[in-house]
Amino acid sequence: MNNSVIRYILGYILRIEAVLLLFPFLVSIIYRERAGIYYLLTAFVCMALGFLLTLKKPASFVFYLKEGSIATALSWILMSIFAALPFWLSGEIPSFINALFESTSGLTTTGASILSDVETLSYCNLFWRSFTHWIGGMGVLVFLLAIVPLSGGSQINLMRAESPGPSVGKLVPKLRTTARLLYIIYFGMTIIEFCFLLAGGMKIFDALTISFGTAGTGGFGIRNSSIGGYSAYIQWVVAIFMLLFGVNFNAYYLILFRKWRKALGMKEVQTYFLITTAAVAIIFINIVNTASSALEALRHAFFQVSTLITSTGYSTVDFNQWPQTAKTVLILLMFIGACAGSTGGGIKVSRIIILLKTIKKELASYIHPKSIQKIKMDGKPVEHEVLRATNVYFITFMIVFSFSVLAVSFDGKDLVTNFTAVLATINNMGPGLELVGPTQNFGGFSIFSKIILMFDMIAGRLELFPLLILFHPAVWVDLFSNQRKIFSRKIGHKM
Amino acid sequence: MNNSVIRYILGYILRIEAVLLLFPFLVSIIYRERAGIYYLLTAFVCMALGFLLTLKKPASFVFYLKEGSIATALSWILMSIFAALPFWLSGEIPSFINALFESTSGLTTTGASILSDVETLSYCNLFWRSFTHWIGGMGVLVFLLAIVPLSGGSQINLMRAESPGPSVGKLVPKLRTTARLLYIIYFGMTIIEFCFLLAGGMKIFDALTISFGTAGTGGFGIRNSSIGGYSAYIQWVVAIFMLLFGVNFNAYYLILFRKWRKALGMKEVQTYFLITTAAVAIIFINIVNTASSALEALRHAFFQVSTLITSTGYSTVDFNQWPQTAKTVLILLMFIGACAGSTGGGIKVSRIIILLKTIKKELASYIHPKSIQKIKMDGKPVEHEVLRATNVYFITFMIVFSFSVLAVSFDGKDLVTNFTAVLATINNMGPGLELVGPTQNFGGFSIFSKIILMFDMIAGRLELFPLLILFHPAVWVDLFSNQRKIFSRKIGHKM
Repeated sequence: MNNSVIRYILGYILRIEAVLLLFPFLVSIIYRERAGIYYLLTAFVCMALGFLLTLKKPASFVFYLKEGSIATALSWILMSIFAALPFWLSGEIPSFINALFESTSGLTTTGASILSDVETLSYCNLFWRSFTHWIGGMGVLVFLLAIVPLSGGSQINLMRAESPGPSVGKLVPKLRTTARLLYIIYFGMTIIEFCFLLAGGMKIFDALTISFGTAGTGGFGIRNSSIGGYSAYIQWVVAIFMLLFGVNFNAYYLILFRKWRKALGMKEVQTYFLITTAAVAIIFINIVNTASSALEALRHAFFQVSTLITSTGYSTVDFNQWPQTAKTVLILLMFIGACAGSTGGGIKVSRIIILLKTIKKELASYIHPKSIQKIKMDGKPVEHEVLRATNVYFITFMIVFSFSVLAVSFDGKDLVTNFTAVLATINNMGPGLELVGPTQNFGGFSIFSKIILMFDMIAGRLELFPLLILFHPAVWVDLFSNQRKIFSRKIGHKM
Repeated sequence: MNNSVIRYILGYILRIEAVLLLFPFLVSIIYRERAGIYYLLTAFVCMALGFLLTLKKPASFVFYLKEGSIATALSWILMSIFAALPFWLSGEIPSFINALFESTSGLTTTGASILSDVETLSYCNLFWRSFTHWIGGMGVLVFLLAIVPLSGGSQINLMRAESPGPSVGKLVPKLRTTARLLYIIYFGMTIIEFCFLLAGGMKIFDALTISFGTAGTGGFGIRNSSIGGYSAYIQWVVAIFMLLFGVNFNAYYLILFRKWRKALGMKEVQTYFLITTAAVAIIFINIVNTASSALEALRHAFFQVSTLITSTGYSTVDFNQWPQTAKTVLILLMFIGACAGSTGGGIKVSRIIILLKTIKKELASYIHPKSIQKIKMDGKPVEHEVLRATNVYFITFMIVFSFSVLAVSFDGKDLVTNFTAVLATINNMGPGLELVGPTQNFGGFSIFSKIILMFDMIAGRLELFPLLILFHPAVWVDLFSNQRKIFSRKIGHKM
């Protein structure tokens, strides 16, 4: 195994994080807050450690899916730990496990919080919380790809580990250019939302942090009422942009090059909007009697559908109080999730389409046993490898999900709380129902449960396998095996 | 499509049902109950209709999986309808939809009831309720195979549609002999349990009906307290026999021929007992403080684990009142289910093993991308077709499950009720939690929800696809297409 390239990638990630930590420091200068000093301190430690790790260039920049996955998983864990330090050092989140929960939740764009009152946080901490969403949304390793020259053929293994969806969509043949294009679209859309929010009379700080949370489909608010306290205009803007950030970015790439027909013809995008429309319709009918006007009911239905299908987690209303059908629809939306290749979480619409087509094919095989059918998507047959990976993903998802619910149940909370707490973290959603509903928080869980839920957040963000392989004994044998290396040198092999 | 063989099978099934209906009639004579007359009446109608349908022998006895599946699904629906008639005609279940719910629940070995007070039923109705469990447990089409001479190569298509598990296990090369052997083991074990129960001082009627419910892993009780009111000895006997009926019948076949080592070496059976032991241990620790003695806690833990992993549904205690961890374990057991090739429901232990091995293989492929691993079970590689079918089954299960929960949610009941009501019916379990907990019943659901839940019962019993293909338009075109037949005759083809 190419251990030195893993070390090198981790070092580079820390150097990037050091730079990112300067932004909240800047905010603290503007608002003259003492807590900012801890961002400078953490940035310094990150930078120093990052330099140490990247001091020696790896002998070879060639690596495989194994190294790519391990590097990605370890990067996310390391980043979360360093991102937690300022929360903890500033004393605004006194328990380290809570600070880590908050930073992991931020980076993985989950948005589940342990805080009961976010309004007491200093500006720099509020900014950092929302900024981690923006960082985590597109992915740090994708960013790394955009700036660091790695071996061309190996880069895809980082992209595969970090990008959501059943298959990696390269916009252009060169991966580095793809990464840059993705970041340009991401950056551009964030700025457009920011402008729309400013136009609605929002303060710059609010508009910036809310845009970060929307773009990364994160969901940390800066007010206790989330988006509920803002005007109807702001709520519509945020709802529409959440939905837009849940669209497969390939569509935006196509639009950028004026291939409108191809963009709008994408089966996944069509299905995504279809599901959204159907869900809004059902919920609207279900809640219209409880709202003060039909327009208000429509706004709340649209906002909550948009926030949950994209796994953002903002809210304008306590949907835990909604009738059962509406709640059931919301839970199903949480499972479905956004499009592949977006910043949203969940199982992903394209996987659901593939799964449904698999069932259809199975039924057809009962009726015409001898006909051989290929599952197609956007006119092209879906590769066998993608089908297999999708099936395995779904199975693994359900089994990790079940074990997590069991583990969290030791706290003795009710079933709906446990079920939706796991659902909300593994799908990078944020709020669930009952004790983790939109007006509640995750502070009441035990340390053990918090660790499980953090595991779920990272597992969900990296789509399970990159994190799960860290639990494979062979990986640790490889990571710490000097003897093996010596042995392999003797017999002239490269590990 | 060979429509005439479907007609012939349906006719034969009705003739079998007519004979079976005479047993409760016999019971009514013993207890001098007027309700018995409706069993005679229904038997007469069944027999007449059965004779009409089997009057003309089909031109060909050759049929494929399509016809086998359709015949099986239609048989189960038809049987349920006729089995409901005596409940309804006798006036003891005044609403026909409720009577149908009860008979479907009986035949599919679900054991979910709409009755709030079973003790008011007449003996013949109580007997019939339990007897349907025994009929449905092993399967009526398996019985048909044992007695009716059908084309040898085609029989497997009935067996495949009705038998639970990822692959059909033939005990001996001849399917008819397999079917007979299965029924002999089934019959023998039921008698042994019956004797054990009599030895514990149970009345003959009670011992008989409880044995039927155990053997079919059904769960209809004849007292409102289910098994809770019987002695500890009885509870242990029932718990042990439930567990035994959840074992893959292949193991009993091997034991019958003294191949002990091979029987005990079956991976599925070992895992089944391992899961049971682990679940009993966790629940025991979780509830021991609330019980009056450790032995009582052990008995309750063992009984409830046994009843839920085998999807029987008897209870000795209101487990809805248990702490959350215990309840979560029970829900997971409901999903897992018993062994393939047993009378139990659920996803089945062998499928869970295959799914877990699939995940392990996927992880290994990240670490050693070039090694080709075969998934093995009991030393033999699992065929690709079985793997694929298992994955597709799991996916379909989850999607049917989700849609059912959504459909049932229109009634406005709480999430746990809806979730466990669907779980309890699709896994042929019986009771769920909250409003469908062991002391509650399904009477409160709307007609629409009851239809959904009945659909789930049959879908669960037939393992989804045989019932689902009835919703494929091509099937109905084939079933009612005289023009096609004429056309095909003209061009000299057989459809």
